[in-house]
Amino acid sequence: MNRAAALLSGGLDSAVAAAWALGAGFDVAALTVDYGQRHRAELEAARAVASHLGISDHRFVGVDLRAFGGSALTDDVAVPRDRCEIGEDIPATYVPARNTVLLALLTALAEVAGAHRLILGANVQDYSGYPDCRPAYLRAFAQVARLGTRAGAEGAEFAVLAPLLHLSKAGIIRLGASLGVDFGLTMSCYDPPAAGVHCGRCDACALRRRGFAEAGLADPTSYAQPPAQPAVS
Amino acid sequence: MNRAAALLSGGLDSAVAAAWALGAGFDVAALTVDYGQRHRAELEAARAVASHLGISDHRFVGVDLRAFGGSALTDDVAVPRDRCEIGEDIPATYVPARNTVLLALLTALAEVAGAHRLILGANVQDYSGYPDCRPAYLRAFAQVARLGTRAGAEGAEFAVLAPLLHLSKAGIIRLGASLGVDFGLTMSCYDPPAAGVHCGRCDACALRRRGFAEAGLADPTSYAQPPAQPAVS
Repeated sequence: MNRAAALLSGGLDSAVAAAWALGAGFDVAALTVDYGQRHRAELEAARAVASHLGISDHRFVGVDLRAFGGSALTDDVAVPRDRCEIGEDIPATYVPARNTVLLALLTALAEVAGAHRLILGANVQDYSGYPDCRPAYLRAFAQVARLGTRAGAEGAEFAVLAPLLHLSKAGIIRLGASLGVDFGLTMSCYDPPAAGVHCGRCDACALRRRGFAEAGLADPTSYAQPPAQPAVS
Repeated sequence: MNRAAALLSGGLDSAVAAAWALGAGFDVAALTVDYGQRHRAELEAARAVASHLGISDHRFVGVDLRAFGGSALTDDVAVPRDRCEIGEDIPATYVPARNTVLLALLTALAEVAGAHRLILGANVQDYSGYPDCRPAYLRAFAQVARLGTRAGAEGAEFAVLAPLLHLSKAGIIRLGASLGVDFGLTMSCYDPPAAGVHCGRCDACALRRRGFAEAGLADPTSYAQPPAQPAVS
């Protein structure tokens, strides 16, 4: 049995990562974590994506990271908008230990589903800013999964697979298109104004727009607003 | 600033581990995780223990592991009772990836509290059966905490400290007594019949009774039932 456990956020990246795992022949169990994000439209998108991909073992688990504060994604502070570059700084949307919490919950699913592969959509666009998306981190987590589970204690090797790690957003979109992913079901926006509608202005929307443009593919996304005008210099 | 983040379950072990950290001079922030355990008396015990120890930064976070099933602690299946030996088998009370989930949430607290030491009450009694209590696992998790946090990315060294790791239950009780821990506030029972009352029969109650007896200290615990009679052979 070639089973994998995949995080499915409802976003574009995790949909492509899960589609990659299915295409690679894994029997995929999916996990969507409601960590108190205010864009709950993501959760509905995750349900639609799982259904679209034909993943029948899809579980939801709630964990409320708001107890820890400190992030624009879960606190009532402004979402950063209109940033043109994702640089080396850790972004304001950083959620403390988010991937560690998500991968820990994914390890619980892997344990009960008999999966030894943990799949997530982390990529260079993320790990330029988020420490918990970098390759060394992902390798360290695989060790934790191996040493901390019944299956690992009995000899199973665990691996964390991040098939998008070295892809740009355009590369991810091209890969997803080749795998038949319906991007119209995915939700990237940090602050969607309505169900299924992207704001068009936040960092995530800017990245998404640019990704489709650079990939040379039609963008099926419904954006509430056009992109911001570049500042006149 | 010498800050530590400690798991506080409401049980005896975590109370002693937190008291040890305070005694070692750490400024302790505590985390109690409600992972869907059915013995909610533990949560109230955790509150009482934090207050008793003078820990003012005490947070509660809920995560519902019942989505994953597979454990007597969270499912509606019988709790194992009257086992005389804790052997090498992984016990039926195993919760999938429990310590990984708990330590991940503790890492989130550590990140926002500026703590680089993660404290938990894991001990030999645990790690004879639970893979996620063993020293190699705890070292691997420290790597994850270092590589996956903003502070770690900026150079901070993280460590997971399990001060009870090599102590028997009697040794833990002696250490706690020397640190002034009020054991009457702690709750060990897997299935407490009433608030503040231990069943007296489950594995955890048997261990607790035997610990006080072996330590030669008075046991302040209220048990609903006497210990089971040993089988006549």
